[in-house]
Amino acid sequence: MAEGSGRVPLAPTPYNYDRRLGELGGGTQASQRLLAYSDALFSIIATVMILPVAHTKIHSDEKLGESVQQLLAAKIAVYLMTFLIVTVAWAAHVRLFQVVELIDDVLALANLACMMSITFLPYTFSLMTSFPDQPFGLFMFSSCAVIIGVIQVMIVLYGFRHSYLLNHQIQESENKAFYKYHILKIILRGPTLSFLAAIFSFFFFPLSYMFLGLIVFFPLLSHLTKWFRSRILGQEEELPVDYFTSYLKEPLSKERVETFSDGVYAIVATLLILDICEDNVPDDNLVKVKYSGHLAEALREFSPSFLAYFGSFVTIGLLWFVHHSLFLHVTKATRLMTLLNTLSLAFIGGLPLAYQLTSEFAEKSYNEIEAIQISCVTIFFASIFQFSIWIAALFHEVETLHPFARYGGKEHAFMFAKLSLYPCVSLAVFCLTCVMSELSTTIFHLTQIIVPFAFLVLRIFVRIGLMMLNYIMSLARSKSSVLEEEEACLSPADVLS
Amino acid sequence: MAEGSGRVPLAPTPYNYDRRLGELGGGTQASQRLLAYSDALFSIIATVMILPVAHTKIHSDEKLGESVQQLLAAKIAVYLMTFLIVTVAWAAHVRLFQVVELIDDVLALANLACMMSITFLPYTFSLMTSFPDQPFGLFMFSSCAVIIGVIQVMIVLYGFRHSYLLNHQIQESENKAFYKYHILKIILRGPTLSFLAAIFSFFFFPLSYMFLGLIVFFPLLSHLTKWFRSRILGQEEELPVDYFTSYLKEPLSKERVETFSDGVYAIVATLLILDICEDNVPDDNLVKVKYSGHLAEALREFSPSFLAYFGSFVTIGLLWFVHHSLFLHVTKATRLMTLLNTLSLAFIGGLPLAYQLTSEFAEKSYNEIEAIQISCVTIFFASIFQFSIWIAALFHEVETLHPFARYGGKEHAFMFAKLSLYPCVSLAVFCLTCVMSELSTTIFHLTQIIVPFAFLVLRIFVRIGLMMLNYIMSLARSKSSVLEEEEACLSPADVLS
Repeated sequence: MAEGSGRVPLAPTPYNYDRRLGELGGGTQASQRLLAYSDALFSIIATVMILPVAHTKIHSDEKLGESVQQLLAAKIAVYLMTFLIVTVAWAAHVRLFQVVELIDDVLALANLACMMSITFLPYTFSLMTSFPDQPFGLFMFSSCAVIIGVIQVMIVLYGFRHSYLLNHQIQESENKAFYKYHILKIILRGPTLSFLAAIFSFFFFPLSYMFLGLIVFFPLLSHLTKWFRSRILGQEEELPVDYFTSYLKEPLSKERVETFSDGVYAIVATLLILDICEDNVPDDNLVKVKYSGHLAEALREFSPSFLAYFGSFVTIGLLWFVHHSLFLHVTKATRLMTLLNTLSLAFIGGLPLAYQLTSEFAEKSYNEIEAIQISCVTIFFASIFQFSIWIAALFHEVETLHPFARYGGKEHAFMFAKLSLYPCVSLAVFCLTCVMSELSTTIFHLTQIIVPFAFLVLRIFVRIGLMMLNYIMSLARSKSSVLEEEEACLSPADVLS
Repeated sequence: MAEGSGRVPLAPTPYNYDRRLGELGGGTQASQRLLAYSDALFSIIATVMILPVAHTKIHSDEKLGESVQQLLAAKIAVYLMTFLIVTVAWAAHVRLFQVVELIDDVLALANLACMMSITFLPYTFSLMTSFPDQPFGLFMFSSCAVIIGVIQVMIVLYGFRHSYLLNHQIQESENKAFYKYHILKIILRGPTLSFLAAIFSFFFFPLSYMFLGLIVFFPLLSHLTKWFRSRILGQEEELPVDYFTSYLKEPLSKERVETFSDGVYAIVATLLILDICEDNVPDDNLVKVKYSGHLAEALREFSPSFLAYFGSFVTIGLLWFVHHSLFLHVTKATRLMTLLNTLSLAFIGGLPLAYQLTSEFAEKSYNEIEAIQISCVTIFFASIFQFSIWIAALFHEVETLHPFARYGGKEHAFMFAKLSLYPCVSLAVFCLTCVMSELSTTIFHLTQIIVPFAFLVLRIFVRIGLMMLNYIMSLARSKSSVLEEEEACLSPADVLS
């Protein structure tokens, strides 16, 4: 596996960039800001499809269980698939710009064209699922994917023509043509499959779906078959081809994983305030007629919304904080960690739905308990996937973690406590909802708001725990050393007495 | 002025960070990611208030001129003021974290609490303007500002108690108490005024508005009075106090200006696709009944929306591209440049409104020309403020620009051409709308889509222009040198003949 190869990560140091840019002059540019901007767009596009889900109106007399089933059948599936597809496109983008390291104006414009096609993916995908029996939606989606692929191929070709833009390892290699061929092969895989899907959409569209499914799952399938082959046939020799292309399979750069995650957290946090600003400003006439002009009383009606907002913001903020603490200790994100991170983010993107449900069903309504349960499940999965990133990192801790966060390091226990807080709390609340039927959304949101203080208390507890452990160990050590001394000084008869 | 003092910018190099973090261990963290996340939140909050403006329904038989006047009166003013207020809060945040350079868990949590209060600002502000005669909205807004201030003061106090978190210049200075006092004085100014505003909101609220206005305009006013005093009384001696606090008046760090701008551009670009995803998926039954099941025909009805989307995305993408090119050449952003950048961004945030107007009024409708004109005006101001950033940078070019972008540098002409493209195009289209009454939104959007190609053509034109200039100059030089030679060789009589 690529993670295991222990190769030096390819991220160039700022120093190198500056020196190279100095040599190349003003036309050539470092790509960091372009990539950060692209990451921001990617993350917003990925989470956009939660809005139609969250804005689905559910009447409070309707049973939520059934409505959720309907939602699950269509919109949530659309959201999750869109998230996955956009993430695949994002990963391809990351890989591409690990090969093409510097940009110029032409590449910047080409990248913007690529981003424009990507922003259209969620729309075509929702067309596809709204009209599953129509070939047109499928055709639009596939065409979009083909256009993205074509632009990416153009970027690669342009990069190889102006080879000073490339990663310096490729630049200095003698097998440039070989590299080019392999990179194109990997990049062309998606567009070719999409092209076939677009053509078959008019003849026999089940086949088109198969082709599209292949794009998302191909890397996983090829990985699995390789793994099985190596297990059954024994450790295979790596082909020389793999040597040249191995860093295309390198883990994604940690910076871009962070930027993408930040974007998702930021947009999710602000989707909430966006809803508040649009829906919760009371009507001027209503205030005059119903509340005889008292604004404060009119706003009291919205108080569940405000409480839900604060609760959700605190939860998202703290999950971001945990993610931030975790990635501070991570030196390199392996493929498995990136995958787990994507899954965690997909559930984070589901939080606006949880907010909408818990704020919509006022106290003692029919669906209150279900709304809380859905929130707990969403938070549980978001946090348990964060936890598993940590577990995955511990498996290769020498490569992936800073020394002070490794097993036995001084930050290890605290990191563990931080990561396990949200899974534990959400599980506990979920269990409570099963036992106590009178648990209200108010109590739920107050719990959410209290959690950050738990974080601070946790820090103190961990410290006290470690101090006590140290004390006991030092006590034990001093006792044993006293014993040793006694053993050395006294005769065996004295010890026995 | 602070920009003129030529002091070394305070941004620490990554190397320093790493070394200091290595000494301090895992509990202390570099703040880059926290700040990038905060910037993303700030930029989204700043642009959120354009949504109620853009989503105001205007009937196509209503005259747009009057509707726009109504809009202007309330919602656009709310949007612009919110943008300004959030920008002021952002600038304070930037300054604060130029003093406190490293963070730990407590500061990260305090910052998240601060961000939560800031996300609430747009809502309280829209309450304030929806009910201008009610003290409660004003009270909420002021309280929000007080809470933000109190949290910031706590961050400063915590930072000075754990002084290893501070900027190393303050850390090594002997006047730490002095610094602390002055920083607190500057930070407490806002909350104190807000506190007064909150109290007076219940007695005499015109005074509250005055206090709030002071917060936004105080720095400007103090600047102006200083400038006038120095003009009238002659160049004043700088007080020693100013020496200690001068870097609090330092220009904002270029990285954070970029991140904030990127956030605004990204959210504006994706607000468009968000609308498309929610509004333009046709209803299943409608397609069956009206279009006898032909999805492609049903979508044809939306084609103005799609064209408007592509046009707007291209415009935002290119304005981002110009901004990106500009800031590549900038080494330091002065106060004036930051102010101009904020104004440019405020108009960028208005683009979703332009998109909504041009996509809503189908061809040959009553308000088509007005919609195009509003779009042109928005784009013109967004781009002319970008242009003036460049002009402002040229005034102090030795400090603010890379050598190759300075007057006479090899990138200078091209940068100039890039920046003047959008003002020229939007002005030209605006003039056309006055002359030709049959100009349609379709033509307008096609113009928007063509502009990027103009960028590439521009590059070629500028090259050809420079080559010709070089050629002419070399010709002139060789001619004059020939003449000189002739003059040297021949007698005056020969020259005359």
